[in-house]
Amino acid sequence: MADVAVLGASGYAGAIAASLLWRHPCFELKHVTARSEAGALLDEIHPRTRVPLILEDWDPGIQGQVDAALVCWPHGVSAPAVAALRERGVRVVDLSADFRLRDRAVYEDWYGAHGAPDLFGTAVYGLPELYREAVRDADLVANPGCYPTAALLGLAPLARAGAIGDVVIDAKSGVSGAGRSPTETTHFISADENMTPYKVERHRHTPEIEQELAALGAALPITFTPHLVPLAQGELVSSYVTPTVQLGERELADLYREAYDGEPWVEVALGPPGVLEVRDTNYCRVSVHRDDRTGRVLVFSAIDNLWKGAASQAVQNLNLMFGRDESEGLR
Amino acid sequence: MADVAVLGASGYAGAIAASLLWRHPCFELKHVTARSEAGALLDEIHPRTRVPLILEDWDPGIQGQVDAALVCWPHGVSAPAVAALRERGVRVVDLSADFRLRDRAVYEDWYGAHGAPDLFGTAVYGLPELYREAVRDADLVANPGCYPTAALLGLAPLARAGAIGDVVIDAKSGVSGAGRSPTETTHFISADENMTPYKVERHRHTPEIEQELAALGAALPITFTPHLVPLAQGELVSSYVTPTVQLGERELADLYREAYDGEPWVEVALGPPGVLEVRDTNYCRVSVHRDDRTGRVLVFSAIDNLWKGAASQAVQNLNLMFGRDESEGLR
Amino acid sequence: MADVAVLGASGYAGAIAASLLWRHPCFELKHVTARSEAGALLDEIHPRTRVPLILEDWDPGIQGQVDAALVCWPHGVSAPAVAALRERGVRVVDLSADFRLRDRAVYEDWYGAHGAPDLFGTAVYGLPELYREAVRDADLVANPGCYPTAALLGLAPLARAGAIGDVVIDAKSGVSGAGRSPTETTHFISADENMTPYKVERHRHTPEIEQELAALGAALPITFTPHLVPLAQGELVSSYVTPTVQLGERELADLYREAYDGEPWVEVALGPPGVLEVRDTNYCRVSVHRDDRTGRVLVFSAIDNLWKGAASQAVQNLNLMFGRDESEGLR
Amino acid sequence: MADVAVLGASGYAGAIAASLLWRHPCFELKHVTARSEAGALLDEIHPRTRVPLILEDWDPGIQGQVDAALVCWPHGVSAPAVAALRERGVRVVDLSADFRLRDRAVYEDWYGAHGAPDLFGTAVYGLPELYREAVRDADLVANPGCYPTAALLGLAPLARAGAIGDVVIDAKSGVSGAGRSPTETTHFISADENMTPYKVERHRHTPEIEQELAALGAALPITFTPHLVPLAQGELVSSYVTPTVQLGERELADLYREAYDGEPWVEVALGPPGVLEVRDTNYCRVSVHRDDRTGRVLVFSAIDNLWKGAASQAVQNLNLMFGRDESEGLR
Repeated sequence: MADVAVLGASGYAGAIAASLLWRHPCFELKHVTARSEAGALLDEIHPRTRVPLILEDWDPGIQGQVDAALVCWPHGVSAPAVAALRERGVRVVDLSADFRLRDRAVYEDWYGAHGAPDLFGTAVYGLPELYREAVRDADLVANPGCYPTAALLGLAPLARAGAIGDVVIDAKSGVSGAGRSPTETTHFISADENMTPYKVERHRHTPEIEQELAALGAALPITFTPHLVPLAQGELVSSYVTPTVQLGERELADLYREAYDGEPWVEVALGPPGVLEVRDTNYCRVSVHRDDRTGRVLVFSAIDNLWKGAASQAVQNLNLMFGRDESEGLR
Repeated sequence: MADVAVLGASGYAGAIAASLLWRHPCFELKHVTARSEAGALLDEIHPRTRVPLILEDWDPGIQGQVDAALVCWPHGVSAPAVAALRERGVRVVDLSADFRLRDRAVYEDWYGAHGAPDLFGTAVYGLPELYREAVRDADLVANPGCYPTAALLGLAPLARAGAIGDVVIDAKSGVSGAGRSPTETTHFISADENMTPYKVERHRHTPEIEQELAALGAALPITFTPHLVPLAQGELVSSYVTPTVQLGERELADLYREAYDGEPWVEVALGPPGVLEVRDTNYCRVSVHRDDRTGRVLVFSAIDNLWKGAASQAVQNLNLMFGRDESEGLR
Repeated sequence: MADVAVLGASGYAGAIAASLLWRHPCFELKHVTARSEAGALLDEIHPRTRVPLILEDWDPGIQGQVDAALVCWPHGVSAPAVAALRERGVRVVDLSADFRLRDRAVYEDWYGAHGAPDLFGTAVYGLPELYREAVRDADLVANPGCYPTAALLGLAPLARAGAIGDVVIDAKSGVSGAGRSPTETTHFISADENMTPYKVERHRHTPEIEQELAALGAALPITFTPHLVPLAQGELVSSYVTPTVQLGERELADLYREAYDGEPWVEVALGPPGVLEVRDTNYCRVSVHRDDRTGRVLVFSAIDNLWKGAASQAVQNLNLMFGRDESEGLR
Repeated sequence: MADVAVLGASGYAGAIAASLLWRHPCFELKHVTARSEAGALLDEIHPRTRVPLILEDWDPGIQGQVDAALVCWPHGVSAPAVAALRERGVRVVDLSADFRLRDRAVYEDWYGAHGAPDLFGTAVYGLPELYREAVRDADLVANPGCYPTAALLGLAPLARAGAIGDVVIDAKSGVSGAGRSPTETTHFISADENMTPYKVERHRHTPEIEQELAALGAALPITFTPHLVPLAQGELVSSYVTPTVQLGERELADLYREAYDGEPWVEVALGPPGVLEVRDTNYCRVSVHRDDRTGRVLVFSAIDNLWKGAASQAVQNLNLMFGRDESEGLR
């Protein structure tokens, strides 16, 4: 039993992570922290977690005594906390964007100055389906963004095959992706019965997707547009690929079946997936199609943005880092 | 006052059309028909209409005595009814797909045999913003599909400018688009908190969009994928255009402003539109953007699928056909 | 044409009121004010209104030049503004709770000190179906609360008949009732797929309902509990009456038919109403039932909390005050 | 490991029960049956179950070889299947209403002729919190209705204390309670943004609640009205009790704390519960309040209608029948 802490447990992803670890057979959840709600019980704020721990202020001298920590803070404020934890030898899964990018200039261009420059570039990108072995040995894992998780699991087989000539990614997310702060955007009356594109041309997951597509063999600029839809949890990514080579339906099916055969958390579906099919799970559900009229390849991938897109994927990474079956505590 | 009938008034679009005509200053709603619910009061079935007319069986000898009719029946069954009405000199707005396409082979390829071949090709495509003058003189108007309405109003300025090299159209619709029949798809438990692509590669609005883009100068095969989202009424079409020429933000803004200046029912918005902004209205709300990283042009267009995408656009056409201000009865 | 202003037009009710008055045949909307968003266009903040007026700071020297004003501010801050308007001879419909109660001690008990004591007790309670004649002559009308509107229209026939021995009122409201401020309660993730009682034993509409029931002949303490349900607009009030006399189904039906015969905005339905049937309308839809097993009388009343429960009822009152048909501008 | 079957696994409750038993440490799920979808994989129809079993036709010679069965069929068709299973010695939890009532005349009055008269009256009412010991020894358990589960857990402490003089029960349920058949009621467009009372005066859970209240010491006719609200899973029961004796807040709190101390699946909350807090769980969450103005006692109880109101409570009963910890497989 390794001792773990969850920093930022009052947010949606942090609360789910705490809930998963509280019931996990291999980890003991010792500390949960919150920046503005310290002193409250976690299950007062998030009754569904049923984790009767008191939220603490962040204090590396206290929470830094654990074996591992999940850091669920926003980018910018996350990096210094991660640095403090690493100094104490704590193994970290960071759910922010602070350690996902490997090119410092790109990070600064999209996010501004980095909060822990010495650690920049030292993390493993925690998409287990792509970096499983590296995660096992990592002390610092950068948990992927929700959109990149779904987009990359959808596109990886094509990228590795060198088949992506161009790609348009149209993504749709439930409202929990906008975070727990009450804002005009997250107000029920704004979101209910509505849908709208947002952060057109400038969503920060763009360079993250491009970085990992390039690592897979598809170095190209992408068009990525997220949309807000009126549901709580769930993300659907529709990718429209102009292929470099003509691929038939059968070849596509084989490509995806082989890519994900044996993967515990990727389901290749025959028909297009619905987000409800993966709600409250660590699954990513993918389908691939060929549009015969245009030759384009269509890929749809569905995840729960708070689970596979954040909290449960962080636990999947933690399982790997501690030599456990990556699915433990996730069924 | 012209006398009008609504055939198929028990469906969602038909009920709204009947409600608009019941309160319209220039038309007198004389008959409403239904295929399976004849005998019932329309406002028992659709209380929101507050139209206290009894739904009748379809009988051209009775309902064919009016000056004009809106036919809100599905494709296939619509064409023969339209033919019977036209024989009696009734002017018709047909909301089905039966008269939208102008190429018989394309129709048969996507829909099968046509139900009134003699009339095929005689209708005016009833998108007033594109065919206003022709609609004024038409005796038979084919009311556009909901997706084509939003897609074409979004793309027309670019198409006319010869700027569309390629286009991916990702469309999202509320559940009313699936019709009033209770099915597994329309069950609350299937649709709520879910979203999913549907009719991938084979939605019948594809050839309709291609036909009208070609008429505007952009003859090319398109990739069109609709998605179902958990809301009642509203449609958002996200179009990703690979332009033939580089267009700056300013040029794009000018192009759209000029295209829609003076149009009563198209709003060019600065930011991306939300479907709630056009709910229960005849408006189409459009925004255009340039992705500097890829040079792609992004267009978002939002309508209410039952209003501008069906019922209110039919009334807009009817106004034009009878020489009235096209906005009468629609505010 | 009387000139009117809407104070507090950036809230949900104020925005709808402004939208109704902007298109009203008898009133000219001259000013809209907002406390924190002055300077913005109303239709930027509320695109659905399509009212292209700039929100102004409240200044009695400016907005107090109109013939009438609708005040859509919260209780407490409303009273002084109403006083300033009345001093200038402006006729006022106040949508806050400041002038609804007639017993000063009761007001202070539930709301605290009053902001314009000289005016206390001078207003007419603006439920037109109960106080139509008094509203016509009033210079200050207190627009009823949303729950009292539905509860009183549901219970008035029984109260007048002296038939209410005891009553339990279980009310359910959509989220717009919680106002436009983003809070934890109004966050989509809190409200979606949830429902919960709130303000148990202490909702401020309790004394308002009691006051008016007493005026109708039923002076008794009530049990009133509101619940929040996951929809935008709509309020359903379920009233469980222990009658003083046994009333049969037929007698009840007659009682309600007679009570509301000729009322333009109350619909007596045979079956229980759904809130969707009155969405975006000034209607209250009521049904009455007798539980043969217990002798209890059940009354269900449905309104749109922002329309009949606030904005459109305010316009209905304004119509009466200015000698117009009370339904003008509301269809 | 006992072998079990789920009859009627294609319905919502049956599918969840199958999913729970498929992963249960003490039971082996051998058969799942469906009346109209036999031959399909359960997880094709209900992907969320991830139970890769083929749905079979009902055949007592086959499915009747198991040690226990959960019967998830509607009342009427359930009784004969239960009889066939019992003849083979199979222990049964029946989720229909067929064996819940103990008075034959009452059953026939509300449901018509019984399908297995010899077995009538032999079942234990499977609300573990009330009948735990009897369930352990039972061969036939009648799983309670969803509304009775929530209502009785809310009212039991008061009923046992002899404190209920009269009670009005206003209940609200999500749409899954209406079953999986696509109907006008369950159509997304009917349910979304709507709420309405239904089966006023005549919901069949009325006699079931009365029977069990009487068994607890409160023999009285109740007023019970259910309402449909726009969410998928969740049930909130608001009970308004006219007490026989005055009970203070403190006494009420003590009464409930003592009643449920040590109960694993009943949570006594300080504030009113929301249904989201118990979504996808076996919990019932209860709060009790005193309305000082009227002396009335208010009780709110929230469950997930498909879990504690059906499937997970059935598994809880099965655990007890087979001598296991009643919570196994439910966390």
